[in-house]
Amino acid sequence: MKQVRVCVVGASGYSGEELVRLLLQHPRVQLAAVTSRQHAGMTVAQVFPKFASHAKSKALRFTDSSTSDIENLAEIFFLALPHGVAAEFAVPLVERGCKVIDLSADFRIRDAAVYKEFYGCDHPAPGLLQRSVYGLPEVYREQIRTSSLIASPGCYPTSILLPTLPLLREGLIRAEGIIADSLSGVSGAGRKIEAGFLFVECNESARPYSVPKHRHLSEIEQELSVAAGGAVQIQFTPHLIPLNRGILTTLYLSPKEHFKSDAEAAAIGEQISRCYECAYANEPFVRLLDGNALPDTKNVAGTNCIEIAWRLDIRTGRLIVMSAEDNLVKGASGQAVQCMNILCGFPETTGLS
Amino acid sequence: MKQVRVCVVGASGYSGEELVRLLLQHPRVQLAAVTSRQHAGMTVAQVFPKFASHAKSKALRFTDSSTSDIENLAEIFFLALPHGVAAEFAVPLVERGCKVIDLSADFRIRDAAVYKEFYGCDHPAPGLLQRSVYGLPEVYREQIRTSSLIASPGCYPTSILLPTLPLLREGLIRAEGIIADSLSGVSGAGRKIEAGFLFVECNESARPYSVPKHRHLSEIEQELSVAAGGAVQIQFTPHLIPLNRGILTTLYLSPKEHFKSDAEAAAIGEQISRCYECAYANEPFVRLLDGNALPDTKNVAGTNCIEIAWRLDIRTGRLIVMSAEDNLVKGASGQAVQCMNILCGFPETTGLS
Amino acid sequence: MKQVRVCVVGASGYSGEELVRLLLQHPRVQLAAVTSRQHAGMTVAQVFPKFASHAKSKALRFTDSSTSDIENLAEIFFLALPHGVAAEFAVPLVERGCKVIDLSADFRIRDAAVYKEFYGCDHPAPGLLQRSVYGLPEVYREQIRTSSLIASPGCYPTSILLPTLPLLREGLIRAEGIIADSLSGVSGAGRKIEAGFLFVECNESARPYSVPKHRHLSEIEQELSVAAGGAVQIQFTPHLIPLNRGILTTLYLSPKEHFKSDAEAAAIGEQISRCYECAYANEPFVRLLDGNALPDTKNVAGTNCIEIAWRLDIRTGRLIVMSAEDNLVKGASGQAVQCMNILCGFPETTGLS
Amino acid sequence: MKQVRVCVVGASGYSGEELVRLLLQHPRVQLAAVTSRQHAGMTVAQVFPKFASHAKSKALRFTDSSTSDIENLAEIFFLALPHGVAAEFAVPLVERGCKVIDLSADFRIRDAAVYKEFYGCDHPAPGLLQRSVYGLPEVYREQIRTSSLIASPGCYPTSILLPTLPLLREGLIRAEGIIADSLSGVSGAGRKIEAGFLFVECNESARPYSVPKHRHLSEIEQELSVAAGGAVQIQFTPHLIPLNRGILTTLYLSPKEHFKSDAEAAAIGEQISRCYECAYANEPFVRLLDGNALPDTKNVAGTNCIEIAWRLDIRTGRLIVMSAEDNLVKGASGQAVQCMNILCGFPETTGLS
Repeated sequence: MKQVRVCVVGASGYSGEELVRLLLQHPRVQLAAVTSRQHAGMTVAQVFPKFASHAKSKALRFTDSSTSDIENLAEIFFLALPHGVAAEFAVPLVERGCKVIDLSADFRIRDAAVYKEFYGCDHPAPGLLQRSVYGLPEVYREQIRTSSLIASPGCYPTSILLPTLPLLREGLIRAEGIIADSLSGVSGAGRKIEAGFLFVECNESARPYSVPKHRHLSEIEQELSVAAGGAVQIQFTPHLIPLNRGILTTLYLSPKEHFKSDAEAAAIGEQISRCYECAYANEPFVRLLDGNALPDTKNVAGTNCIEIAWRLDIRTGRLIVMSAEDNLVKGASGQAVQCMNILCGFPETTGLS
Repeated sequence: MKQVRVCVVGASGYSGEELVRLLLQHPRVQLAAVTSRQHAGMTVAQVFPKFASHAKSKALRFTDSSTSDIENLAEIFFLALPHGVAAEFAVPLVERGCKVIDLSADFRIRDAAVYKEFYGCDHPAPGLLQRSVYGLPEVYREQIRTSSLIASPGCYPTSILLPTLPLLREGLIRAEGIIADSLSGVSGAGRKIEAGFLFVECNESARPYSVPKHRHLSEIEQELSVAAGGAVQIQFTPHLIPLNRGILTTLYLSPKEHFKSDAEAAAIGEQISRCYECAYANEPFVRLLDGNALPDTKNVAGTNCIEIAWRLDIRTGRLIVMSAEDNLVKGASGQAVQCMNILCGFPETTGLS
Repeated sequence: MKQVRVCVVGASGYSGEELVRLLLQHPRVQLAAVTSRQHAGMTVAQVFPKFASHAKSKALRFTDSSTSDIENLAEIFFLALPHGVAAEFAVPLVERGCKVIDLSADFRIRDAAVYKEFYGCDHPAPGLLQRSVYGLPEVYREQIRTSSLIASPGCYPTSILLPTLPLLREGLIRAEGIIADSLSGVSGAGRKIEAGFLFVECNESARPYSVPKHRHLSEIEQELSVAAGGAVQIQFTPHLIPLNRGILTTLYLSPKEHFKSDAEAAAIGEQISRCYECAYANEPFVRLLDGNALPDTKNVAGTNCIEIAWRLDIRTGRLIVMSAEDNLVKGASGQAVQCMNILCGFPETTGLS
Repeated sequence: MKQVRVCVVGASGYSGEELVRLLLQHPRVQLAAVTSRQHAGMTVAQVFPKFASHAKSKALRFTDSSTSDIENLAEIFFLALPHGVAAEFAVPLVERGCKVIDLSADFRIRDAAVYKEFYGCDHPAPGLLQRSVYGLPEVYREQIRTSSLIASPGCYPTSILLPTLPLLREGLIRAEGIIADSLSGVSGAGRKIEAGFLFVECNESARPYSVPKHRHLSEIEQELSVAAGGAVQIQFTPHLIPLNRGILTTLYLSPKEHFKSDAEAAAIGEQISRCYECAYANEPFVRLLDGNALPDTKNVAGTNCIEIAWRLDIRTGRLIVMSAEDNLVKGASGQAVQCMNILCGFPETTGLS
């Protein structure tokens, strides 16, 4: 079976490491190159001892490749780089006809002005913005298939968008007043060596941060607006909790129709249920919970699945939707590999189940 | 210095244990008795090895006292019992003139019908409801002083009420649409021996539960309604996260006045700030954060403090208020001891700082 | 490709759950039945939501099979049952010609008297003891191939035996004075619903237990004695630490030859290195660390690998050997599947890498 | 009641922070100054929000004092500095007649050559070595009383020495062949901002390190040798486990007398018991466990206590002694405050219970 040659650029962080994990075991991939300034010269097995059982990990060495010489290393490039730096690599690669799947924020935002508002600097390659596609397969599968620049979504956005988009598209909920309250494991901060992410500072700690304007709002609102057919602004509060992996998001939504009785709630519930079934029944990585089950990060850790459950509150008239995902898999590297599968025409679950 | 004789009834759970910790070291308290069916005959040091360095812990033995014979054991009784059972003990004790501080839900709800709606059974002692006071010192200090039956508030309610009540009372926020999203450490579930609270089930897990109608809503809404001067219904979602101790609550509130500009936000911010200062500047256990600081459960663990911070979101027009407390201290046993201090005329921070 | 039909008896505990995980994704296995009194009637997806993405998990229901009617369910039976109960199932299954892989201690001990000493009851099926093989593939691969009753080793024994056996067999270390100090994650206690395994009791806790005579000593010493060609008694201290998964073992051994100089140490080191290389260079699941690397449970979590590293201490004349494994995989279910692969003639890593 | 003026030099790490906690609440101490280059100008409340409820924490600001100007700040100086740097501060302070309690290793080792062997550099102030006393109150209480330079012991050494010294002094165990296997929480690494101490790298990880020659061996062996009346070399293996606080040490010792029967074991047990009682019955911070109890870090977290239990193993002839302490309290700052209490003639438990 033919394999595609793949390179991970900037493979020293947690999403880079997770990409390496997924790609090493991917049956249709030849992991041809991994780059990292910090680890150049070392083997994958040395840098990531947990992968040492893969024969490949002892042979493959990190390189310190620059933008000028990497295009021959592979056909598909995953960029696991900080925003700004990612664009520097993406531009020449795309120009030379390579396929790029970028895990940074650089090509997620259509509007360079919004990028500047949220990321605090001019967009490094505005000319490419129109060529990129937002790599959420459940929404943009067709565009991903033919794209040469895929912007893999952020971890929080994935956990918020997948539960919300179908409801907005079908007009079941109001576009105003949406609140997303999210809890993230510490790997979400990347392998940043800062005091705040030391074990002792995170263990036995739960804390909000980036209140009220986290950068991910820019892509969340962009995609919600597309679904709603008009500008959407939401409230989003991320919290850091002592998990390695996982995002739990609780969404506070308002159904368009009011419901005061159990019968009215049942009718709306039927619509919501049908809407989700319609959107996701055939999606291999979206798990709609039924019965009394509620999402739990431990049920999705290490997998590319997102769990979704919802409840109508007859007292308040609200719809509560909850989701759980692994921030490093469905929230980052797994979704990027899912995009690659689509791009290459592989079955979408290849290497991911 | 004269000491008051105190008994902890049902001291085998986590709040009972925390009461024992606080009362053993309280300079104005003689811990005269601790009861527990399960541990009867054992010393405090045997049941709670961590207290073994207190001389008292080796002398004091758990007894299996029934409602009929405990009234002579002490002057003040802390009830750390399940709801329903607590009332059985409270009734005879109050009748015989003892002072009772109840940590269960039995006397928190004024309205027996609401109790029945949320706790699923008839109130066991409706006649006492009018004699009890809700033991939130920052609100009911004067009533606590002279009460013989204090209903110590729940952990979630404390974390929600203290940040919200002053704003409601002063009419700075709307009473409609309040959302409280809370994260709790596992000790909040008590020492319940259930599969869901095993280490392996909680570690690396974040999950919502009791959605959308947790029992604590009954007392939360009761107290919010008092402050608002009219019926208040809120949205409340509790989550279980892998902490031993701590509750982090994020509140989504709507200021009555709209603000679109920085100047308008600053004006409203000034009002909020003054409101909180006015309510809490002299409260020894309420810590209003300033600057960039946000609440963190690790900063209050083991203490009777609650941290509060807030942010106005000019994009959405909302006020986000966040609080952190130790669910076993300010959220349970510490607050109960604070009530005892008030009741006995001791300085309010005695034994708590 | 032909698949073997497999049944997991007693699949409600952690090793049962891990067996289900491994067998659901095993390309040569048809998971034909799972039994559990507690979960009878429920689907695998309902009991273990994390497996819900496997199509099979929604179709397969737990049954409450008794010893009398399960032999037709499958060709190979994994018993994930308490000791004593396992033998009750094993006896009729073996008699009827089924293959049994038992994860309990029932068939690990050759000598029924030793079983009685350590497990406190008469052996339930002494007649089968001579037919069973100790399922440590790195030692008994040939016997496993043709056995109908495989006793899958305990978690601690695996972590102790693999690093020690080659050294003993080659006479590089003394058989006297061996000390094994082990740290285990909480899943090692099984899904026992006891107060001591609640999250709050294990988090922020490190504690020894079963000192000085843990049951696993019986099988550890049996296998060490075989390797040494004479009776071996060791010191073994298990500790519980706040991990979900993982065992870290540190072994204190005495090389037969004394070494006082660096040169002497280098010579002995060379022998040790060769001994391990010889024993394990071709073993797919034994990872000999080199350079400065030391074992770490996080590098083997979720895998069937054991990491081994060693250091000679010229000051004390001792050899320190350290190992890390996942107690539920190489220490239990993964190793059992490895045995099944051998038994069925599948490549040994099938479904395990 | 007269208060002593105290300064903490280098109060930004975990033991510095713990010193601040203990000294803020110490009734006989006026915390007159805290220094830290990094935090100079900030208040204690800003740097350590958890102390913000102490009135003092809002008034006291960190200073960036150098060795030349701090002697007037206080009467007693706690040095919470890296080794090498500590001596630079200690020399002038001692010369000018100040009392110094040093938490670094600089004055723990009597022999400058041993210091050089283990710390890799010449001793920075060998002239002071003979004036310093090893600050283990249970051993050197009288010398501490009159010393002007107290070297507060390391965390591992405290956990190893207290259980071992009485047995060695009374000749109950052999001085040869001692093994100490220790598990430490991550705060033991200090607030070092290194990748290995990030939450994600420590959570779900158990790993040995510094095998076989950790620096603490130097002071451990020095003190064991004093007790044994001759040179002692031991085996010591530290492990890092996912706790915030706590050290659990398991010691493998050989009683001088052999025991083969229960009666012989009982006789030796009687001697051990008497030895420990004699040494520690009146020590306020040593807790000898009885019955089935074994040490557990969670029982000593936040306290200055060390728990000790022991078992004789009739199978191997060994004595297993286990201890648990909080590495930041009895293993560092609490013990330093205990020394200060002795030095100042305060009751030894002042501010520590």
